[in-house]
Amino acid sequence: MYQLIKRDGKAKRGRFTTVHGVIETPVFMNVGTAAAIKGAVSTMDLQEIGTQVELSNTYHLHVRPGDEVVKKMGGLHKFMVWDKPILTDSGGFQVFSLAGLRKIKEEGVKFNSHIDGRKIFMGPEESMQIQSNLASTIAMAFDECPPSTASRDYIQNSVERTYRWLVRCKNEMARLNSLPDTINPHQMLFGINQGGIYEDIRIENAKEIAKLDLDGYAVGGLAVGESHEEMYRILDEVVPYLPLEKPVYLMGVGTPANILEAVDRGVDFFDCVYPSRNGRHGHVYTKYGKLNLFNAKYELDQKPIEEGCQCPACRHYSRGYIRHLLKAKEMLGMRLCVLHNLYFYNHLMEEIRTAIEEGRYKEFKKAKLEGMEQGE
Amino acid sequence: MYQLIKRDGKAKRGRFTTVHGVIETPVFMNVGTAAAIKGAVSTMDLQEIGTQVELSNTYHLHVRPGDEVVKKMGGLHKFMVWDKPILTDSGGFQVFSLAGLRKIKEEGVKFNSHIDGRKIFMGPEESMQIQSNLASTIAMAFDECPPSTASRDYIQNSVERTYRWLVRCKNEMARLNSLPDTINPHQMLFGINQGGIYEDIRIENAKEIAKLDLDGYAVGGLAVGESHEEMYRILDEVVPYLPLEKPVYLMGVGTPANILEAVDRGVDFFDCVYPSRNGRHGHVYTKYGKLNLFNAKYELDQKPIEEGCQCPACRHYSRGYIRHLLKAKEMLGMRLCVLHNLYFYNHLMEEIRTAIEEGRYKEFKKAKLEGMEQGE
Repeated sequence: MYQLIKRDGKAKRGRFTTVHGVIETPVFMNVGTAAAIKGAVSTMDLQEIGTQVELSNTYHLHVRPGDEVVKKMGGLHKFMVWDKPILTDSGGFQVFSLAGLRKIKEEGVKFNSHIDGRKIFMGPEESMQIQSNLASTIAMAFDECPPSTASRDYIQNSVERTYRWLVRCKNEMARLNSLPDTINPHQMLFGINQGGIYEDIRIENAKEIAKLDLDGYAVGGLAVGESHEEMYRILDEVVPYLPLEKPVYLMGVGTPANILEAVDRGVDFFDCVYPSRNGRHGHVYTKYGKLNLFNAKYELDQKPIEEGCQCPACRHYSRGYIRHLLKAKEMLGMRLCVLHNLYFYNHLMEEIRTAIEEGRYKEFKKAKLEGMEQGE
Repeated sequence: MYQLIKRDGKAKRGRFTTVHGVIETPVFMNVGTAAAIKGAVSTMDLQEIGTQVELSNTYHLHVRPGDEVVKKMGGLHKFMVWDKPILTDSGGFQVFSLAGLRKIKEEGVKFNSHIDGRKIFMGPEESMQIQSNLASTIAMAFDECPPSTASRDYIQNSVERTYRWLVRCKNEMARLNSLPDTINPHQMLFGINQGGIYEDIRIENAKEIAKLDLDGYAVGGLAVGESHEEMYRILDEVVPYLPLEKPVYLMGVGTPANILEAVDRGVDFFDCVYPSRNGRHGHVYTKYGKLNLFNAKYELDQKPIEEGCQCPACRHYSRGYIRHLLKAKEMLGMRLCVLHNLYFYNHLMEEIRTAIEEGRYKEFKKAKLEGMEQGE
């Protein structure tokens, strides 16, 4: 399914073929938590801004509208009208961060819904069943994502349990894919490497999960409080133990600089709420770094957010107009900033792919990072 | 400028030529108060949903971002990126309803900004100067819009003062249009008929303002508390005294039924916040009447809002999905409902124009009204 087209140092230029079409990597997935990108961005807009993969959150869709509802509506693709790949997370991260967590047992986790407080149980089988109902292209294994402050003992035990959960996920996904009423019988499963900031635990875990021959492998539990340098160090240590012939996904990362560095360490897939969240607050990405469009200096600025940018906001509207919309709390202002930021990320990945293909990734990365630090 | 193409009973099918293009009437203007349609609808979207004229509010733009800012940005058309006609109201209605009104004098009105409380003075000259800075296609005369509960004496005095203000508006607009740095030297001016629910005052006023040979005439001060029957009665009485060779604009109206009835009484222009406001609350218009998409019965509904509708929401998304978006407070839900409602109004006007052209307006109106009362 994954074809390694070119390597430039450790950077990989790959092609991942799915039942919903081809994903050219490195790729940034656009986050649509509740089956919609925040900021009034439609799936028609996603087509226009070059999105390859949409990511939705299993926990959110399980509590609202309910994965059974999505299944009855024909699955996520039909529900949100998006025929390209969709990745769903496992629900684990939200259960451990958002929901009212009650107890972790070998079977799974009991927690309270953040919507109506009702008690929910989720284990590896439940997570797979929900994701099977959602019928995403790629399902993520159900894992515990312990806080980076957890002790070594806690992390060690957690990683071992998460490994046992992964085996159960694999078996359950195989069973679900073979059921006659399954919407997507080709649903793929990615495993998740954990181990906090302990390289030896992570490496041991990477070796174990690699043997399971999954469709792809994620590095989880980073970008949760540790420094960027620690994150890069862990990637340096761990990625070499993940199969080269499979895509590597760094979960929840990150800034353009994080992505540039992680690609250089062999990562294929990324996702992050930064571009949409920052956009909703009027913070927009440019090759010169981030701008805050609320700043008074943009009041009479007739230039687009970034000269030459081909996003729907920059092709039509000025900084001055968008600033006015943001100040007047017009939703259109947020929408234009989110469209720009998602396009910026998608376009950055396109440039990254070309640079790897042309064997000049190191120079490309250096120039990009310098440009972003330089300011306008 | 206004060409009466066809009459069917009192219904008029007109063509109004402006420096920003032709407006086919009867027409519904899409309201973009602060130079943006609420609900994250862009001017690119307006192109797609068949909008002919956009309406912006002078008072709102005067207080934010400031009409001087809009002028420096090249005028409203360039600012919001819309090259078709724009009508601006006079600011009068908002001054009398929204702002902290202080005192009405012969010169004009003192009030406090609802944004920062600062004292502002606005009279006929100031309103024209602001609208000239905004450089709309059509400016509205500065008028007082007294409450429908006002006494006959109050209304009589108010209408006489508003007439004197209209003469000042006309003179000031002529002066502004001849200035060398004016953005739109062809800015048009519509006068406004007032008189509350007193037909004799309204008729006398209509005769007086008709003599001023303005570009068009509005009926103001309706849809502010009186019954629909009273509104129709006043239109029956007053519209015949407005020039047949000029467009007639019924301000702030209204429901599809109101529009169908007013067209039958000779009205050309309409504007109303209903379609966008209702859309933001999940209330959508169909030929069967209004639906509330929050209703649980739409949870698994795979049909579009209205079968056969060619709006961007109906061409792609289901009621079930849009209901989910609304429940999850995703801005996209509001946006799709607003797009649908504006398209519904624009499309209704198109059907109205065709029915008048074909001389079957009475039957058309009857069938439309019956359909909307019937329910799905």
